Amino acid sequence: MDSQDKVEETIESREWYLASYVPEGVPTSDHLKLRTSSISLAQIPDSHVVVKALYISIDPYLRDIMTGIDDGLYLPQFQINQVIKAYGIGRVIRSKESNFSEGDFVLSYAFPVAEYSVVQPSHLLLRKIDPASEISFADYLSTLGPAGFAAWVAIEAIGNPKQGSNVFISAAAGGVGIHAGQLAKLKGCHVIGSTGSDEKVKLLKEFGYDDAFNYNSSESYDAALSKYFPNGIDFYLDNVGGKMLEAVLNHVNRKAHIVLCGMISQYNKVWTERDGIRNLLNMIGKEVKMEGYMVGSFVHRFGDFAKEMETYKKQGKISSKHVLYNGIESFLDGLGSVFSSSNMGKVIIQFNSKA
Amino acid sequence: MDSQDKVEETIESREWYLASYVPEGVPTSDHLKLRTSSISLAQIPDSHVVVKALYISIDPYLRDIMTGIDDGLYLPQFQINQVIKAYGIGRVIRSKESNFSEGDFVLSYAFPVAEYSVVQPSHLLLRKIDPASEISFADYLSTLGPAGFAAWVAIEAIGNPKQGSNVFISAAAGGVGIHAGQLAKLKGCHVIGSTGSDEKVKLLKEFGYDDAFNYNSSESYDAALSKYFPNGIDFYLDNVGGKMLEAVLNHVNRKAHIVLCGMISQYNKVWTERDGIRNLLNMIGKEVKMEGYMVGSFVHRFGDFAKEMETYKKQGKISSKHVLYNGIESFLDGLGSVFSSSNMGKVIIQFNSKA
Repeated sequence: MDSQDKVEETIESREWYLASYVPEGVPTSDHLKLRTSSISLAQIPDSHVVVKALYISIDPYLRDIMTGIDDGLYLPQFQINQVIKAYGIGRVIRSKESNFSEGDFVLSYAFPVAEYSVVQPSHLLLRKIDPASEISFADYLSTLGPAGFAAWVAIEAIGNPKQGSNVFISAAAGGVGIHAGQLAKLKGCHVIGSTGSDEKVKLLKEFGYDDAFNYNSSESYDAALSKYFPNGIDFYLDNVGGKMLEAVLNHVNRKAHIVLCGMISQYNKVWTERDGIRNLLNMIGKEVKMEGYMVGSFVHRFGDFAKEMETYKKQGKISSKHVLYNGIESFLDGLGSVFSSSNMGKVIIQFNSKA
Repeated sequence: MDSQDKVEETIESREWYLASYVPEGVPTSDHLKLRTSSISLAQIPDSHVVVKALYISIDPYLRDIMTGIDDGLYLPQFQINQVIKAYGIGRVIRSKESNFSEGDFVLSYAFPVAEYSVVQPSHLLLRKIDPASEISFADYLSTLGPAGFAAWVAIEAIGNPKQGSNVFISAAAGGVGIHAGQLAKLKGCHVIGSTGSDEKVKLLKEFGYDDAFNYNSSESYDAALSKYFPNGIDFYLDNVGGKMLEAVLNHVNRKAHIVLCGMISQYNKVWTERDGIRNLLNMIGKEVKMEGYMVGSFVHRFGDFAKEMETYKKQGKISSKHVLYNGIESFLDGLGSVFSSSNMGKVIIQFNSKA
């Protein structure tokens, strides 16, 4: 990356916007479209900066806020014609805000999925990151980003599974699962994951999972859980919902704890079409506690999280795996890939950057 | 009641036993049968007593332990040919146990549904009750019994809803609901109940509920909850499960708490036929905590409970309503009535007693 950007007074910027809501199914080019806007660098409003995007994190929740329906995660929905925003990293190329200078590398949870954007740092909670840090930009978006934070909140702030307890994590090779499994292992738990391919089963073992199974194999969920949890499940971090959650409720131990982080198997359906969980009565007999959470409610813990994860990262106790998609054009494919179980690790869009 | 029983050396005793498991539907005379046994009063084993039954409490959990299937409440199932046991009160007519004397009134959570029984007090956790107490026998089985205790555990020991919070209770005119509503009112909550008839709606208001609705009316559950909870639900005590639980999950406030006490709408179905809850994703967006419990895990709190409830009872702050069924023959009808929404209050079988 060069330290300087050479741009004309007016620049062209491609950006993804929501052309129509996506009530069901995986978003397609009917719903998300790329357009080109012009940005006049001569007319930047006060307390704004111009940022050039470098990396965008793809996380499953993005899908849930393209429906136009206020349910499920209850996050503010993207509006029609609005530029998509996601966790991302960029570089300041012009600044009319005294806290930011040209050349600063910056991160936001609401980075526009656009080559260039004129933004107000306070609106986006834009913060600077140090390019000389041992933490790579990709790690800022995974281990130190939404996936790592969601994993940390589930394991450290909410669940706190005891040493020796039997922990199950679904979508284990996804961004949250990879980190959650490692955190649970650091607490001395026996950790098993489910994932969508034999290759990913292998990957999970490399990341320290005691074992893992491929939910796409011929074995039923019930048979797999019987095999991998002969002594039952004490703690379940649910990233998928649906039939796997139902199967788990037939294998829970007394006083089991289920933390609901996401339900990736359910996002592509309207709620009335989602899988119904028929055995919640087991929650009474087994005195199960189930709770959902949103990382947004734990921002006051972000400092603790970042400090702990950076330490683990530097000590080599936590590692991550990324799947890089190249170029702003790849955003749609990258998003779709999260729902196809084809990825090995955290999906990140890398812009074709000359920054 | 006379203070003395005149019995022959051998007495005939009718008793209800499980003739066949009840996987689905309401138990009928095919499943539960009455038979007559003989008890020889001359041959009572050491540390046993003979008790004559006076009152038996009918509680919905009894249905769940007649299936022969180890799921749902996970309580030990009744075995084929075994005499049914329930929360009940009786009187000792013979004793070979030094702690019990003829004439003692006794209570157990596992009282045989039989006119007379030879029992070992320690096995049944038999305890004496004072007939001169201000607490009536019926109240010992409702307010001071399983229904009152289940309500107290949900409201006081687990849920502890805050003053001013919006509380919803289903099966509100049942034994648990009647007590839970009064306890929540004593905590300053705004309490709404659902029940199966307009008559019971009236009853609930007499018992201090702020309002109530008839779930059998033409209005959808969703419409009713919109109407009675314009500001959403903060705490839900679920006694019914199924479609009502699903409807509630579309009306919960952020950080709502759902305590699962029972699922009376679901007991008569095998688990795969039970209503599936399709909107658990809302638990993530609204950060809902849902937990099931069994009163058996709170026996260490029974003393606190009994003390508090007796005080409330004597102060007139908690009242109860009982539906008495007469005679041991009525046990089957009494049990069935719990699932037909025909009762106004706690169902109790009163034996045709000459005790």
